[in-house]
Amino acid sequence: MVHVYNTKVRLKDGHIGEVVCGNGHRTDFSAPPEFKGNPGMLTAEDALVAAVNMSIMETFLHLIEKKNIKVRAYEADANGILGNRKGNECIIRIVVHPKITVDPGTDFDAVELALNEARKYSIIANSTHATIVVEHKLEVFKG
Amino acid sequence: MVHVYNTKVRLKDGHIGEVVCGNGHRTDFSAPPEFKGNPGMLTAEDALVAAVNMSIMETFLHLIEKKNIKVRAYEADANGILGNRKGNECIIRIVVHPKITVDPGTDFDAVELALNEARKYSIIANSTHATIVVEHKLEVFKG
Repeated sequence: MVHVYNTKVRLKDGHIGEVVCGNGHRTDFSAPPEFKGNPGMLTAEDALVAAVNMSIMETFLHLIEKKNIKVRAYEADANGILGNRKGNECIIRIVVHPKITVDPGTDFDAVELALNEARKYSIIANSTHATIVVEHKLEVFKG
Repeated sequence: MVHVYNTKVRLKDGHIGEVVCGNGHRTDFSAPPEFKGNPGMLTAEDALVAAVNMSIMETFLHLIEKKNIKVRAYEADANGILGNRKGNECIIRIVVHPKITVDPGTDFDAVELALNEARKYSIIANSTHATIVVEHKLEVFKG
């Protein structure tokens, strides 16, 4: 089956636009402040880094569920670094730092394998030129 | 100057997470419905297509401003198509359809040049493997 993801943008005023995503999310956006945009809004740069971060989490949850492993908590910082590729500015590197909490007795190797697979099979990570690095931390749930 | 774009994700419940973007936007997200997610929320797939759509608009506005051309309206649909690249699922093609409205007497060639340059210099378009196609429509403002 072919999946198509649709989004609409519309200029509102100045450099501020509205974006409506196919699955229902709607928000204002602008360029980042360093490119004459406004603080407090979604930016294209944030959206790309967020897409990678969200996709790795969702892919991990999908894979870990198949192994019947319970995840008590998952949080991740992701940093996208602006650089230059073939003479053009782009996001050259995205480093994701997931912190995952699991129950005592959980098979750590299985969790790490699922995280490696999430990096490998993430639709969004596979859609970007940026080098994606995942540096994780595993913790045991203390109740 | 090095720019770094930071986002944080956190698992809330089930497959629903919260994303906090560096420039201030905060929202819930999930996988898309076809991958067992929820409707009405941001998804990673929508965020990637939105990033390209927003980036081309912001880059175009930046370039057209330098030419002192007034843009009366800008709206764009973008469709990202899920496919397969080197055996992995990814967004293989994103088609952006901007509709741009300008004042009577505006130099159409200059507008089209700015749009071509926006495609060429968009940070996000240059960060993705997807083939990005821009098919525009220019209209004259009728007041």
